[in-house]
Amino acid sequence: MKLSANNILRFIIAVLVFTIFSCKKENAPVSGQKTEAKKVMSAEHPNLILTAQGVKDIRAQLGNIPIFDNTLKAVQEEIDAEIASGIEVPIPKDYSGGYTHDRHKRNFIVLQKAGVLYQILDDEKYAKYIKDMLMQYEKMYKTLPLHPKTRSYARGKLFWQCLNDSNWLVYVSQAYDCIYNYLSKEERTKLETNLFRPFADHISVDSPQFYQRVHNHSTWGNAAVGMIGLVMNDQELIDRALYGIKGVNLDKTAKDDDGGFLNKDGKAGFLANIEEPFSPDGYYNEGPYYQRYAMYPFLIFAEGLHNVKPDVKIFEYKKGVLLKSINALLNLSDADGDFFPLNDGQKGMSFYNSALVTAVDISYHYGNQDPGLLSIAEKQNRVLLDDSGLAVALGIKNGKAKPFDKKSINLTDGPEGKQGGVAILRKDDIELVFKYAAQGSSHGHYDKLSYSLHEKGNEVLQDYGLARFVNIEQKGGGNYLKENKTWAKQSIAHNTLTQNETSHFQGKYDIGSQYHSELHYFDKKDSEVQVVSAKEANAYPGTEMHRTMAIIKDKNFEKPFLLDIMKVTSDKENQYDFPFYFMGQVIKVNFEYKSPVPSILGKENGYQHLYVEGIGKPTSESSTLSWLGNGNFYTLTTVTDTSDELLFTRLGANDPEFNLRRDAGFMIRRKNTKNTTFASIIESHGNYSPVTESALNSNSSIKALKVVYDTDEYTAIAITNVNDHTKLFITANKNASTEAKHTLIINGRNFEWSGSYLLTENK
Amino acid sequence: MKLSANNILRFIIAVLVFTIFSCKKENAPVSGQKTEAKKVMSAEHPNLILTAQGVKDIRAQLGNIPIFDNTLKAVQEEIDAEIASGIEVPIPKDYSGGYTHDRHKRNFIVLQKAGVLYQILDDEKYAKYIKDMLMQYEKMYKTLPLHPKTRSYARGKLFWQCLNDSNWLVYVSQAYDCIYNYLSKEERTKLETNLFRPFADHISVDSPQFYQRVHNHSTWGNAAVGMIGLVMNDQELIDRALYGIKGVNLDKTAKDDDGGFLNKDGKAGFLANIEEPFSPDGYYNEGPYYQRYAMYPFLIFAEGLHNVKPDVKIFEYKKGVLLKSINALLNLSDADGDFFPLNDGQKGMSFYNSALVTAVDISYHYGNQDPGLLSIAEKQNRVLLDDSGLAVALGIKNGKAKPFDKKSINLTDGPEGKQGGVAILRKDDIELVFKYAAQGSSHGHYDKLSYSLHEKGNEVLQDYGLARFVNIEQKGGGNYLKENKTWAKQSIAHNTLTQNETSHFQGKYDIGSQYHSELHYFDKKDSEVQVVSAKEANAYPGTEMHRTMAIIKDKNFEKPFLLDIMKVTSDKENQYDFPFYFMGQVIKVNFEYKSPVPSILGKENGYQHLYVEGIGKPTSESSTLSWLGNGNFYTLTTVTDTSDELLFTRLGANDPEFNLRRDAGFMIRRKNTKNTTFASIIESHGNYSPVTESALNSNSSIKALKVVYDTDEYTAIAITNVNDHTKLFITANKNASTEAKHTLIINGRNFEWSGSYLLTENK
Repeated sequence: MKLSANNILRFIIAVLVFTIFSCKKENAPVSGQKTEAKKVMSAEHPNLILTAQGVKDIRAQLGNIPIFDNTLKAVQEEIDAEIASGIEVPIPKDYSGGYTHDRHKRNFIVLQKAGVLYQILDDEKYAKYIKDMLMQYEKMYKTLPLHPKTRSYARGKLFWQCLNDSNWLVYVSQAYDCIYNYLSKEERTKLETNLFRPFADHISVDSPQFYQRVHNHSTWGNAAVGMIGLVMNDQELIDRALYGIKGVNLDKTAKDDDGGFLNKDGKAGFLANIEEPFSPDGYYNEGPYYQRYAMYPFLIFAEGLHNVKPDVKIFEYKKGVLLKSINALLNLSDADGDFFPLNDGQKGMSFYNSALVTAVDISYHYGNQDPGLLSIAEKQNRVLLDDSGLAVALGIKNGKAKPFDKKSINLTDGPEGKQGGVAILRKDDIELVFKYAAQGSSHGHYDKLSYSLHEKGNEVLQDYGLARFVNIEQKGGGNYLKENKTWAKQSIAHNTLTQNETSHFQGKYDIGSQYHSELHYFDKKDSEVQVVSAKEANAYPGTEMHRTMAIIKDKNFEKPFLLDIMKVTSDKENQYDFPFYFMGQVIKVNFEYKSPVPSILGKENGYQHLYVEGIGKPTSESSTLSWLGNGNFYTLTTVTDTSDELLFTRLGANDPEFNLRRDAGFMIRRKNTKNTTFASIIESHGNYSPVTESALNSNSSIKALKVVYDTDEYTAIAITNVNDHTKLFITANKNASTEAKHTLIINGRNFEWSGSYLLTENK
Repeated sequence: MKLSANNILRFIIAVLVFTIFSCKKENAPVSGQKTEAKKVMSAEHPNLILTAQGVKDIRAQLGNIPIFDNTLKAVQEEIDAEIASGIEVPIPKDYSGGYTHDRHKRNFIVLQKAGVLYQILDDEKYAKYIKDMLMQYEKMYKTLPLHPKTRSYARGKLFWQCLNDSNWLVYVSQAYDCIYNYLSKEERTKLETNLFRPFADHISVDSPQFYQRVHNHSTWGNAAVGMIGLVMNDQELIDRALYGIKGVNLDKTAKDDDGGFLNKDGKAGFLANIEEPFSPDGYYNEGPYYQRYAMYPFLIFAEGLHNVKPDVKIFEYKKGVLLKSINALLNLSDADGDFFPLNDGQKGMSFYNSALVTAVDISYHYGNQDPGLLSIAEKQNRVLLDDSGLAVALGIKNGKAKPFDKKSINLTDGPEGKQGGVAILRKDDIELVFKYAAQGSSHGHYDKLSYSLHEKGNEVLQDYGLARFVNIEQKGGGNYLKENKTWAKQSIAHNTLTQNETSHFQGKYDIGSQYHSELHYFDKKDSEVQVVSAKEANAYPGTEMHRTMAIIKDKNFEKPFLLDIMKVTSDKENQYDFPFYFMGQVIKVNFEYKSPVPSILGKENGYQHLYVEGIGKPTSESSTLSWLGNGNFYTLTTVTDTSDELLFTRLGANDPEFNLRRDAGFMIRRKNTKNTTFASIIESHGNYSPVTESALNSNSSIKALKVVYDTDEYTAIAITNVNDHTKLFITANKNASTEAKHTLIINGRNFEWSGSYLLTENK
């Protein structure tokens, strides 16, 4: 997230207006916040993450807790090698990826680990190493100007942006706590006066545009200030961390470079950063990828608060949302532990990330000792070297681990859980991720009622994720690529409806962030028929999209299948494009198509990135496409009109830098239509192994798919399998409460039921 | 492999001319070969694959040999379920994938396994099951006409082609052997007279176009006839298996549908099928994919011969080539055990295939008990349920397994090892497969001096493999797709030189099968510098290609790199296209290019399948392309002229059925050139993980690459790294023997060395 020059200007004006100080040199005297902190209590050290009692317990168990011992051994080897290679504290100079950046980043990680080693191994060499390096930082920092690189909206001193400075302080606070008692009072005063306090001030009072927001950057800043405050026992810093800088407010109308508001509501501080982005279910509004990124400062500061300031009851805050959020995040991963790439999310990020080691261990220790978390810790194969890691290691050692059983779950979005949500339907190896959430902050995509489908950790129908090669300097400096905006965020990049070749909310953040989709119903009580249904009325004014998705396990089918009903109602005629981003190679279709030399599908809104590889027309009432992906066969069966166009698309047009993957798509284009219903089934069936070369169950089990009833009140789909068994799925489009009673006649047959939907034999 | 109607006609005429009988109805009396066989010896049963002594040994060890016990348990569960579901012997009707085909295929596998279970478990229910099913086959077969499906050049009776009938007999012979003593003499006579003998006759004397050749089909036929002959103790059948049908010769000029000669040399029988396709090193001329397919009949019949006819000394035949071939085949696999897809090869076929279980176990037992084979058997996690499987299980149990250490290896091609070959250079995790072989029979590709590069089992630069979805009925019946000929076999589909947009040997089998490349030298004595060099003078008359490839481990580079020198000498000006089929996404290039709307590169010879996605010009003396694939960074640095065109290609043009993968390519196009040298380096460097999001060593270590000397006698390449260290690699283009002494002055510096090449510091 960066700020444009224009916005920075607006911000500076705002700060000048609303506060009594500005981005002054840090040596200048400012508000009373910088005066000598009140010492409100004294405490033994370590007490932040490691505790004195925890260290005793760990030492008592050492050699007897395999996963802890192994982690410790690896850390010891790593840090011993670092110590052997000597201390380097270079004058800051580079952007990410450059030498000084990487060195300072490495240093804070090494310091934190060395602190832990000092405590656990009781070997003074680690303490001395930390002291020596901190003294070098002290010496340098007290005269250090702003970082010479100017690209950031909030420049740090060690790093080009305050965000990285905050990372440094979050880690170094832990190291300082570990050697607190090793240092003399004079040494501590020197470090606190010349390094830690000015450091905390720089990232907060001197950088309110960074610190004083509800944003993942600010969370890091809050945690940094708070953690050093906890170690220094400085209540003013702790308060600044929890509640933000007193008296500072930013311009509520200013925006950042991603189009997000800088601080729309004027909220700030760690508690506000918990309050706003997390729904009561623990869903983080930007999605799992950014939740993972924010997780570490949330939890490590919370752990410190819990230890030093138990009266804050941080793990109970907002009905225990921090621990709930860990459970939500773990549920937002596929069978391999990879997070679903909702909004801006880099594929492959998973619960193997170190932030999730923190999350899992803390959740186990400070939560209710869920044995399922132990199985994830086993897969992670490392633990935190602290009290929580010890608890996990002991749990594993004592054979308490059980599989982490991911079930179907509906996660609300919004601070109060009233802004739509994300539903995950799971049955056997099939996972559906259905998104009917709010915008998702500046990292949100214009993908109302979109979904992705997964089997055994592989994508069946994909969400593209982000267009960025995070930290790969050669690809746009590792930052967001322009294709993230021109493709990845656009509606046509998702498995949802695009009307008239424009994205939802015209692809405008201002508009999108005002709205959210609405849950119609979520029903998982019958594990054989799990259904979620949601409506979106604002993406295209005058048009309502209502999507009902069901994972159905039926004895006539090899595996659970997905039934997808997208009912579109509009006040005018439109062109509807309805894509399926299938992952694999085409095996068979039941319609005729031509394969012209590729043309480009459109000019803007993502269309400019799609080639048309094939153009066909339905030749029967339902069109089918089978593909082979990841060793499985899949078949899409979808009800089509004879006037539909069926398009094969390929990503990659107008992509001179090869920033986009050359992925396939299939699209139904329905023109000049007001109201319509797209009804589809996606089956996974059979498999193919290149080792045995046998193709099992390579054909769909569906013979016919029909919309047999479709009114404002009800939509009914008839699914006929190859043995001529027909099932009827009826969903209530209006009153879908569990108590609602329904009576309906379809083709002369009377149906009566209560609840949201009915799945029945068609006799 | 199928025959066209035209070729069938030619064949039939040939048979009429050269033999005293034709494809008569099998009940008609024919040559003396069909008279009652001479009983030359008697033997206890089982003696074919299982032996009476082996069964005793196995029973003694049961419960005590984990991998054997587990395999046995799995087989028992499988067969018990089959027995419970009853016997089905349907009237033959379908092609592959159809019900009767799959049922008869399943039956022969079940019969073989049931036989083994009967012997090992001594449970009569298995014997009875086999007897009952065989009697149903006997009842049906004696009046069974040719299979109703007519597509095959050699129709079977149970199956649509004799090949599958032969599969059946290879397996069922083993079952028959297992219950031989369980059956009464009358029962045996009934089965032999009405089922086995006519069955063996049908696939041999009645189908000489199938049986009387050197071809993998014939190998199955030979093995089938031989194995039932061994069980029946019928010397005439055994001789027919070993030496072919007496007095039958096929038209030596007739061709099959793949363009291969039906029987150019008039050779036939099992021994000829060993003699011809295997080089003395054990390389199989069609490549590893087909070797794997042929392996089972070769080895299972050999095992039977070894047991019943030890005097044949089959495992010593041709200096032990059968066992050598297993070693060669295992060496033709990557780090994951996947076979390199040379010629027609389906990617993903690996040593996990059941034929390789047979191969590994037999090689261990009848070879020299290589402990490396045990580690492969451990990975396979199953063994043959026979004497050899017992030996492997005991070896593993006794802790004898050691890693199968694949080293660099040069495998000659041709019956006498004089028709070029395939070299594999290995260093650390890098594997180069360099092909300078003969045509590779009808499954060969026009890919002289081509290569593929692999790291840790992943493709860095790919060989496309075949264009076929084996056994996936929806894709052209699971048979070869036309794109196999129009793309996969063409020169431009490979990492080698294409001249004037035509394939090697004009893409004609007649021509290609007359020639082979020549090894210039292979030198692996220095494990840090391994080199292979070969020449091809016939692919393009008037042009010689001379390619020297080295895997070099240099302390200034993170990993071993590939140096590739392709020296082209011609008597006229040509256009040279030199592609690199890199696997991954473009990260960076050092030249400028345009990205037009894709056009198609050419009209024929594979060019019609390539889109041009980018057209560039070199902007420096060496052009670079970096990509990210499988979590590693790779950089190609290649010496270019300012007049070169640099093309980004994408596969998929003129592919209406989506039969081809949409893979990327990069190509140097050098026009109007007689003699030229393409000098390139491919580095693997660093890595990227989406979990840690850190990009390590993402830049090439090369600063400059130059051809500093290039004559008929020597080519010298200077490699300068980013720290300005320069290494010089000089290869002798003419006399490259290990003893050859060389003196050469380059840029005023004198070089003296003996041997094929020199790698030295450039001072």
